[in-house]
Amino acid sequence: MTATPPQSADSPIDRIYLDNAATTRPLPEVVQAMADVQERCFGNPSSAHGFGADARRLLEDAREFLRGSLGAASLVFTSGGTEADLLGVFGAAAARPRGRVLAAASDHVAVLGLTAVLRLRGHELVQVPVTEHGDLDPETLFDLLGPDVRVVSILHGHNELGTLARVEELASIVRHVSPDAHVHVDLVQAYGKLDFDLDLAGVDSVAVSGHKLHGPRGIGFLALSSKARVTPVMPGGGQEGGMRGGTENVAGAVGLARAAEHMLTHLDGHTAHMRSLADAMFTRIRDELGEAHRLGHPTRALPHVLSLRIPDVPGQALQQACAARGLAFSTGSACHEGDAATDAQNHVLAAIGLGRRRAREVVRLSFSSESTWDELDRAADILCDEADRLRALAPPSASPRRARRDGA
Amino acid sequence: MTATPPQSADSPIDRIYLDNAATTRPLPEVVQAMADVQERCFGNPSSAHGFGADARRLLEDAREFLRGSLGAASLVFTSGGTEADLLGVFGAAAARPRGRVLAAASDHVAVLGLTAVLRLRGHELVQVPVTEHGDLDPETLFDLLGPDVRVVSILHGHNELGTLARVEELASIVRHVSPDAHVHVDLVQAYGKLDFDLDLAGVDSVAVSGHKLHGPRGIGFLALSSKARVTPVMPGGGQEGGMRGGTENVAGAVGLARAAEHMLTHLDGHTAHMRSLADAMFTRIRDELGEAHRLGHPTRALPHVLSLRIPDVPGQALQQACAARGLAFSTGSACHEGDAATDAQNHVLAAIGLGRRRAREVVRLSFSSESTWDELDRAADILCDEADRLRALAPPSASPRRARRDGA
Repeated sequence: MTATPPQSADSPIDRIYLDNAATTRPLPEVVQAMADVQERCFGNPSSAHGFGADARRLLEDAREFLRGSLGAASLVFTSGGTEADLLGVFGAAAARPRGRVLAAASDHVAVLGLTAVLRLRGHELVQVPVTEHGDLDPETLFDLLGPDVRVVSILHGHNELGTLARVEELASIVRHVSPDAHVHVDLVQAYGKLDFDLDLAGVDSVAVSGHKLHGPRGIGFLALSSKARVTPVMPGGGQEGGMRGGTENVAGAVGLARAAEHMLTHLDGHTAHMRSLADAMFTRIRDELGEAHRLGHPTRALPHVLSLRIPDVPGQALQQACAARGLAFSTGSACHEGDAATDAQNHVLAAIGLGRRRAREVVRLSFSSESTWDELDRAADILCDEADRLRALAPPSASPRRARRDGA
Repeated sequence: MTATPPQSADSPIDRIYLDNAATTRPLPEVVQAMADVQERCFGNPSSAHGFGADARRLLEDAREFLRGSLGAASLVFTSGGTEADLLGVFGAAAARPRGRVLAAASDHVAVLGLTAVLRLRGHELVQVPVTEHGDLDPETLFDLLGPDVRVVSILHGHNELGTLARVEELASIVRHVSPDAHVHVDLVQAYGKLDFDLDLAGVDSVAVSGHKLHGPRGIGFLALSSKARVTPVMPGGGQEGGMRGGTENVAGAVGLARAAEHMLTHLDGHTAHMRSLADAMFTRIRDELGEAHRLGHPTRALPHVLSLRIPDVPGQALQQACAARGLAFSTGSACHEGDAATDAQNHVLAAIGLGRRRAREVVRLSFSSESTWDELDRAADILCDEADRLRALAPPSASPRRARRDGA
């Protein structure tokens, strides 16, 4: 076997990474902190000796910092955002009688994928229709609420569209109509980029993933309010206050806390920088190509996500052509990258009412605090160049088959 | 916050770590390989560009090496052994009609802790009585099998007692009596220390954890036979062939493969070394203290685990006194370290019929390939010294309360 990272001619130095909603580069200080923990503090936090105590202290320091950053009452480390969503949605449902679990039809697959496992427990996952921006409409949610609603899941910042949900307003409605329901928020894209406080937002749990904020892969957490009731899915040896079994990933927790500390310290500057880049990129593409449509809400938006549709330019072809020239972005969430190949419809774009043909014209560029204006310039050159070429090659309006398929 | 590992006067260099069944020190080459991946190959393996392809290649190389090392048909990366046991036991049960799930009463809490979640699906977890060595007796298992048995869980090498289960014989019995049942094996303590092959053993799935073999924390896997049927618990974005959602922990997978490669390359030498150390340690303690009883099976035994009972010496006091002098071991699994404090009975020692008082006299020392003869000498000095002191301090036979509590 070989486990050595490749050093191809296509060196990372020349490549431009604009897929930071899929994953981010871990900060060097995060990588270093994790290596230090692994080498010098490898004990099992449950062990009743010095090796264990050292590890426990690091774990609890990381937990305390992260918990405090969100105004949470407690915090359970998980293997990432998907497991945090499992615990926050399924775990909360399992602590309640059978009933309905509400989630936006545009929610992340980490939540929508729980339909089968919720059914095991007798719960029905109901997909709530969304606005054209991909978020829950308060009135629509209100109409669907009732005494049998056990959990409401809210995607705070939409990973594909960038839209920010009206979390406080939605949570307040749930509190009034279904006071016993658990309000879960997927904060994966926003944590470290936008301020959030569980109490102020009036929610019960928040899911976070390390690798979206320049932290490590394989670690995340569920932060909980004081009144949250959640049943563990994987109780194991009673770690994490009985909420999640398995020997704790101390290096991961320390790395995540270190990344969060960095991001939160520089939050305002980073956020403004990313928003400027995303806005400038869109303006430049639209101006150079003559036409481009930005998806998501115009003002309630994540700073780093630019989701756009370029008419008559197939997104997958554009993404591949740019990738071949060292510019990395995506056609949607990484989880959906295979959809175009299998001709499956992206559920998010379907939920916002985009026809199949238009959905195929969508690409997502996502920035990070490390993205530079120089990269933006080079990326815009490559993208506009390839988009022009593709548009000239195959004008879709000339294809009757394509026109027929477009339900719009 | 502080995320810096402590550098106390009680330096790791002077300490002796004999708690390798709880966790092991990651190999420097593992830590380095993980840092390299994080720095130079941080892409999301699901991404359809070069960053993604580089990460995917590393992930699949790691998977292929690990899969091949066990003769498995496929392999699903998980966050560790506990999640692998969840997927192997609950996931297999969820793919089958309601029925019974059999596990040894001495099995790991990662399995026994699934009682509640199995009940959600309508399955009953039955704890099978075990031998005095803590393993399943083939005849006892045979008597309990039937057409309604969906899963049989076998703990290959017992983490507290060291006993090796008769996996092939047990699996063969299940095949004959309950041919549709899934046979799951927890190989967490044995992988990298003893050879194992899924096909030869005739089992369906095997759980492994990285941090027990000098690999990383927060990563493990479930290796599966070609005919295994398992339902994902956390489908998420369809990663891991639809078996486990969440962005893949590539650095963890690479680190685990690197650790496995090292351990498997040196398997025979390491195993002989650890077995010699464990045997010598027991002999020395017994000879110096006059009396000591080794737990677990005399010949079917993990190489690195020494579980022993020293009459009239309370295990927790011994463990704490030695820890204060820099010698780290445990009173059972790390998950059980709190039991003595809460006066709860260790379920493993109860399962093998040890009364409460005798159970309190048990300690577990566990070696690694890195343990040295010099460490053994120093550890034996400290342990025997403290055991002598404790025995002199509080002869338990002088305590009528203790004598009454001892059911033996």
